[in-house]
This record gives sequence, structure tokens and C-alpha cells, in this order.
Amino acid sequence: MTVRITVWNEHRQERTDAPVRAIYPDGIHVAIAAGLRDAGGFEVRTATLDEAQNGLPDEVLAATDVLTWWGHVAHDEVEEATVERVHARVLDGMGLIVLHSGHFSRIFKRLMGTSCDLKWREDGRRERLWVVDPAHPIAEGLGESFVLSEEEMYGEHFDIPPPDELVLVSWFEGGEVFRSGCTYRRGRGRVVYFRPGHETHPTYFDANVRRVIANAARWAAQPSGERPTYGNRPPVEPPG
Amino acid sequence: MTVRITVWNEHRQERTDAPVRAIYPDGIHVAIAAGLRDAGGFEVRTATLDEAQNGLPDEVLAATDVLTWWGHVAHDEVEEATVERVHARVLDGMGLIVLHSGHFSRIFKRLMGTSCDLKWREDGRRERLWVVDPAHPIAEGLGESFVLSEEEMYGEHFDIPPPDELVLVSWFEGGEVFRSGCTYRRGRGRVVYFRPGHETHPTYFDANVRRVIANAARWAAQPSGERPTYGNRPPVEPPG
Amino acid sequence: MTVRITVWNEHRQERTDAPVRAIYPDGIHVAIAAGLRDAGGFEVRTATLDEAQNGLPDEVLAATDVLTWWGHVAHDEVEEATVERVHARVLDGMGLIVLHSGHFSRIFKRLMGTSCDLKWREDGRRERLWVVDPAHPIAEGLGESFVLSEEEMYGEHFDIPPPDELVLVSWFEGGEVFRSGCTYRRGRGRVVYFRPGHETHPTYFDANVRRVIANAARWAAQPSGERPTYGNRPPVEPPG
Amino acid sequence: MTVRITVWNEHRQERTDAPVRAIYPDGIHVAIAAGLRDAGGFEVRTATLDEAQNGLPDEVLAATDVLTWWGHVAHDEVEEATVERVHARVLDGMGLIVLHSGHFSRIFKRLMGTSCDLKWREDGRRERLWVVDPAHPIAEGLGESFVLSEEEMYGEHFDIPPPDELVLVSWFEGGEVFRSGCTYRRGRGRVVYFRPGHETHPTYFDANVRRVIANAARWAAQPSGERPTYGNRPPVEPPG
Repeated sequence: MTVRITVWNEHRQERTDAPVRAIYPDGIHVAIAAGLRDAGGFEVRTATLDEAQNGLPDEVLAATDVLTWWGHVAHDEVEEATVERVHARVLDGMGLIVLHSGHFSRIFKRLMGTSCDLKWREDGRRERLWVVDPAHPIAEGLGESFVLSEEEMYGEHFDIPPPDELVLVSWFEGGEVFRSGCTYRRGRGRVVYFRPGHETHPTYFDANVRRVIANAARWAAQPSGERPTYGNRPPVEPPG
Repeated sequence: MTVRITVWNEHRQERTDAPVRAIYPDGIHVAIAAGLRDAGGFEVRTATLDEAQNGLPDEVLAATDVLTWWGHVAHDEVEEATVERVHARVLDGMGLIVLHSGHFSRIFKRLMGTSCDLKWREDGRRERLWVVDPAHPIAEGLGESFVLSEEEMYGEHFDIPPPDELVLVSWFEGGEVFRSGCTYRRGRGRVVYFRPGHETHPTYFDANVRRVIANAARWAAQPSGERPTYGNRPPVEPPG
Repeated sequence: MTVRITVWNEHRQERTDAPVRAIYPDGIHVAIAAGLRDAGGFEVRTATLDEAQNGLPDEVLAATDVLTWWGHVAHDEVEEATVERVHARVLDGMGLIVLHSGHFSRIFKRLMGTSCDLKWREDGRRERLWVVDPAHPIAEGLGESFVLSEEEMYGEHFDIPPPDELVLVSWFEGGEVFRSGCTYRRGRGRVVYFRPGHETHPTYFDANVRRVIANAARWAAQPSGERPTYGNRPPVEPPG
Repeated sequence: MTVRITVWNEHRQERTDAPVRAIYPDGIHVAIAAGLRDAGGFEVRTATLDEAQNGLPDEVLAATDVLTWWGHVAHDEVEEATVERVHARVLDGMGLIVLHSGHFSRIFKRLMGTSCDLKWREDGRRERLWVVDPAHPIAEGLGESFVLSEEEMYGEHFDIPPPDELVLVSWFEGGEVFRSGCTYRRGRGRVVYFRPGHETHPTYFDANVRRVIANAARWAAQPSGERPTYGNRPPVEPPG
């Protein structure tokens, strides 16, 4: 089955900030999309904040099995109507993969119900991600751990609901740990949070990072049960 | 330890709707508060929608270990500022017990991130609640199951995140089942959803229902860890 | 991907008990295997208790992606070595689908760590199974609920660990509820418990039951992460 | 409520191995018991492997609300009957706190259903334990993280079922992470695994470690629901 994936990006810092542009001249979304195309099995499109309806009108969402989300400096500029459309589509079955600083996006906070806050430090030192659930499809093809030689640090406490499944835990050189690969179900939709991806590091060119994103997209696009009905309903069994 | 509990009620139907007033002449909150006072170990106050700041100004919330929430016809009249205050206080450690039609309250939806929708039917028939987690303090003193001889039906699918703990499952005469006792952690706070309590039935005078609410309040008021710090942080370990 | 599935059956009552033989003349395993063959995508073999090594020597398990397990009156006759082989193979990544009275099998109890006890009643009345997690692949193609017009009752409390995922909850005409579709991860393996299937009812010819078993097998056969290494290990990062 | 706690220890290395005896001259159990006595609210007794019935006859278990377990080199010498008695008592509601190398004890493996294997290294370097669930009573009174300046390393993958609650995650100087504070429910009993405690380090004199053990004991001793009944049962509701 081909998974239809839309790669969403705020796409601001790549246009204005020279060190970011040096790494992602065409935008972070283009790097992520390239990784998915290389992985195969995906029909990939991209969308960005400054497009009409933030690039996510109903017709795009309706044709999207999985949406990936990267944002950082402009979370508040995402329109309320966009958040509502994406939220409704997730509950209706679309997968959502929230990346790195997307932890503070309006859509992630709405789905989690918590502050989604965390500790951070832009020191560009080593991160090692350990697989703690080797039974999970998101870990397919990874070794027991993998390294990003330079990344921003994110540290606990990460103010999220306890994940339904915890797949990856990060070790940082400065002494911190972090729940870096988490899954949630919301309505008929599946949500993945995946930590790495600071804009000043070439993280989305890393083979392991690309593999996790592709695995997560396949997992989040799995078939699901029937759309439930709600409201006032007659008995399904005869009276006693 | 005495648990300081605030019993919140919309308090509308009891004032305007004769059949409801017949059961709860002083309001549902007064019945719930009486049950808690009888249980002992609680310092109980009440608060209602039409009070200033919806009865929940900062000083009340600061002096509240556990808040119970009953609302039905006026969810939209709860002020946004109230929802924000309660939400922040839950993340900071206050327990929250959401009762019956409170499933559609703004605060519960904000904490859950889902529609919180369900099936319902006002037929006043039997409900039987089964304990499925006998290791849980919320089940203390209950039998293996207990009966409410007349209640509104709530049926699956209940659109909530998978509960951290599932304590009670209801059986309804009309053929439905429902996850009736669910717990969640959000930040440093603990949240319980407990299903029974339609305004046209004397549910909050039932001994088992009162016991569950008291147990839930004690559970939600447990000690917790330190308030986390967030934001930009120096390394905690020396450089490698 | 073709899933290699082995359908294991105790195969005793079908040979000795006329009412059971009337329904399953060739054995319960043959009915389950037929359902999987009809579903497509499976390479199906069967194995039974009275074969050498209980039909499950190492070479069979090594060539099995998912094992289904039905047993009832002869759990204690399964050899300890068989239990150990199956247990090791599950931890190494084989899926296991435990059916109905298999709740008391030695392999299920070993994987769960609890008594796996429950209430039961052979009254052949109605069971209705509700989907409580419509995001789960095991629910694919089911309606919101489905009915078995005659089945044995199983009632709570079911003494299992809290499931990683709860997919189905049963309603019984006699007033009971039951967690009927549960998933667990153990090592690199995935385990599903699915309730229906008493030997005196034609349950394994039911289209919905067959669909759940096929869905569960596909889910349990998903790719997983690398086989972990254990024991004494040198540091992975340079000394601080 | 006073919690009756039995501190169990294998008590072998302290008698034969000089470096261990230098730290724990009276045995690890005596150090753990002292910490619990200092914490207050506990009635503490100890029991060791070489006593009759491994120090855990029925009358001791019946008078024990919470049992702590430390073992290392003699797991196989624990009698099968002892494992069965402890297992039955946990399912019936006794709390169990498994410490450090107790991960490989027969009782822990029986309750978990997995290999409980892990990576290890006796290098006596730093461990930092982070609270990832600040809403949990086990974290009460701890800071956001705490340090043990010398400990054995335990690293992922730790082959346990996904914990019901994950409270602590360790960072190790050599690059590893570990799920160090985990809770499980089994039957009516509550189980905690807490990682630190190698016999060549004075870990059980550490104030934070003592606090976690006392917190865990209080948590594991909480009230629970009624003892379930099992087996053949008449309907609880009238026929339809």
C-alpha cells in the first residue's frame, strides 16, 4: 500500500537565517521529503505555513494518510482553523508525526492536553538514542542504539501524558535523558513524537533519523476500525 | 492527611427543572459534598458556575487538593479564563475528578485532547459496574460489581485517550458496555473520570457511588514529586 | 508479505465428545486454518498436542511468524520443553494469539505472570463484542460491535496484567463484561488474547471472529527492531 | 497506617566477600531495614535465604504488606515452594519491591513473563536518575534528578514488559540509559522494580535511594479492591 504523506514545515528560519539555510537551502521539508522518497512506498507532498490555509486545506488533509510537522519560531502564526482541521482529521484516522520543536506546536499541545514543555540547550553535542521497545515497528532496521554527533539537547521532565508506547530514550553528553520516541492514539488516529531535528544540524540527512520517520509513517498509516457513531442511540439488545 | 476538596457544579437544571429539583433540591454539589463529609478525611467546599470567576478564583484553586466537576447544559458558559486556571492547576498537581456529563466539559476535553464523545440514552434502566482492576485504591471497599437500578446509558466508543488505568467497566441492560472508571496523569496532576450521575436519578446518594468518589479523591490527592523546571539549562554533568 | 502461521490445537474433545465433533469434525484447528486461508496472505500449517514434541519442534517454530493456540482439557499435558521453546521463540519475535480457554494454557500463564483466572458459565447465550479502540488494526473491517448468538460466558475479574492495548470488550446477556481483545508485548514478540471460541459452538466459522484472528495475526507479525544483546558490555561513550 | 514490611536478602556475598562485608558488615538487609525504620511508618522485619523456608513461611507472608527483594548469586537456590508462596501472596495483594540484581530473581521473572535480561558493567562510575513522572508518589521528596557517584551500570534493552508506570530513567557515564523505576500490577498486588544497589557500593545508605524505597513501599501498600471470585458462576442479571 502506498502511504500518502504530507510533510509540513514552518519554513521561516531557512529563508532568513544563514546558518540554517546553509544546511537546508530548500527548507527542512524538502530534506524530510527526500528521505521519504528514498525509503519508497510513499507518495510525498509538502506544505508550508505561508501558503493559503497554511498549506493544509480540507482537500489536502483528506488526501493525506500521514502528516509530519516541523515548526519552531512561528507556532502562534498557525491559524486556529488549521489547528481545528488537523485535529479533526487526526481523530478521524490520519497519522501525525511531530518532530523536534514541534513539541510546542498548537496541534501537539491540543492533542496532548499538557504544556509539552521540556529542558533544552543548543550546545551541538552528542545524542545517543536507545531502542527500549525492540518489538515496535518504529525500531525496524535500527541497531540497539544510534548516535547523532551534534544535536540540541532536550531533557526531562518532558511534560507529556505517559506515552502509550515508549520506543526510544535519548542519552545526552551533558547528563540528561529524554523520551525521544513516543506513540499515542487519539480517536482513530495515531500520533508519534520523534525528538531529533534542530535546524542548525543536518539531522534530517541522517540515515537512522530518516529510517525512524519512514517507519513511524508506515506505523501511523495502518488500517483501523470503523468510524464510530455518537449521540442518542436505541438499545442494541432486547429489553430484559 | 486531610484532603481539601472543592465540589464544582454547573447548578442550572436543579433550579429550573422540576424533576431534577425533586431529587437534588439543593443542587447536585450539595449531595456530592454530603457524601464526602460522611466519608471523613475531607475538608469540603462547593463552587458553582454562576459565582464570580465561576466560583474558582486562584485563591480557591490554590487551596484545593482535588476538584470534582459536574456540568451538563452550560459547558460553553464556563469562562476561558476559568478553564485556563483549572488546567494550569491540574498540571501543577491538583487532582480532578470529572463526573458523568462532565465528559463534555471544556476542561476535560482540554486535558484529553479528543472529542470525548459517546453514545447515550435516557432510559433509566439498570447499569452494573464491574471492577476490572482490583489492585486499584479506587476499588477499595466495593464488591466485585455494583448496580445502579436506574441510570442514563453511556456506550462505547467513548472517544478518550487509552486510560493510564482502567478500573471500572459498565454493563447496560440495552446491550452496551462503557469504560466507567478511568485514570490519567497530566503534568503533576491526576485525573479520574467516573461515569454515573445523571441529574434525573438519585445516583449521588448511592453508597457505592459515594465510595468511588471518596476513593478517587484520596487517590488523586496523593503526594507527588518536585515541580519540574523547564527551559534553557546548563549541563548537569562535566563535558566528555 | 506472506505471514507464516501455525495453528495449534489440543485436539482432544473433537475426537471423543460427540457434540464437539458434530461442529468441528476435523478439529478446531482445521476450522481456524480454513478461515486464515480464506483471508489470504497467510501460509498456514497446523500442529496438535499428540504429535511428536507437541507438534512444535524447533524447526516448526523457526519457520513460524505467528502461532495461534487453542487448548482446554489437556493444558497440563503440554511438555515443559514445549512451553520453554514457545516462550523463547515469542521473546525472540514470534507472534502468539491465545484463543478462548487458552487463557489457562501454560504458555499464556508463563507470559502473563498471573493466574489468568476468570468467571465462566456454559449457557450458550448471546455475547456482544464492542470495539473500544477503533484506531487498532485488529478492529479493521469490524462494525462498532458484533454478536455471537451463542457462546460460553467469561466474566471479570480476568486476572491478567493490565493490557498494553485493550481493543474489544464483551457484553453478556447474564450481566457480565469481559476484556475480550487484549494485546501485550513480551521481548520482541507480540501477544494477543482473543476470547471467543467454546468448543460446543460454531464460533470459528463466524465471519467476524475469523476477521479478528486474521487481523491479529497480521498485527502480531509486524517487523520489529534488532535482537538485543545482553550481558557484560564496555562503555559506548568515552569516559567523562 | 503502619505498613508491615519484610526485607528479604540472599545474604551470601556479605559473609564471604571482604569488599562487600566492608560496606555491609551486617548484610544488605540490615542497611535497607535501617533506612525504612528511619523513614518511619513501617514495622520492619528481615528474612534471608538460608533460614527455614527461605525465611518466608506462610505466617510471615500473611503478616507482610510489602516485601523487598535483594538477591544476586543464589537465585537458583530459592526453593520452588518459596517462589510459589510469594507469587500467590503478591496476586492476593502483597506489594513487592524488587531491587537491583533481583531483576534475575525467580519471583520477578515469574511475575514478568520475560527474560528480565539487561546489559551491565561493574565500573563503579556515575549514575544519574531522572524523574520522568513527577505525578507519582514514588517521586515524592526527590529533586528532578539525583546522583549516585559510583554504581554498577545497567543498560537497555531491559527485557521487561512495558511498565504500567515509568517513574525513573537512569543516565550512565558510559553512554547508557535504563528504565530504573518501574511499576506493575499483578492480581491485587503491586510490584516495583528499582535499579540501584550493587553490593560493592554503599548505595543503600544513600538518602535518595532510601527515600525511593520508602515511597515505593507506601505506594505498594495501598488499599485495594475486594478479592475476586473465579470459576463457574450463575448469571447476575435476569434472562432477556
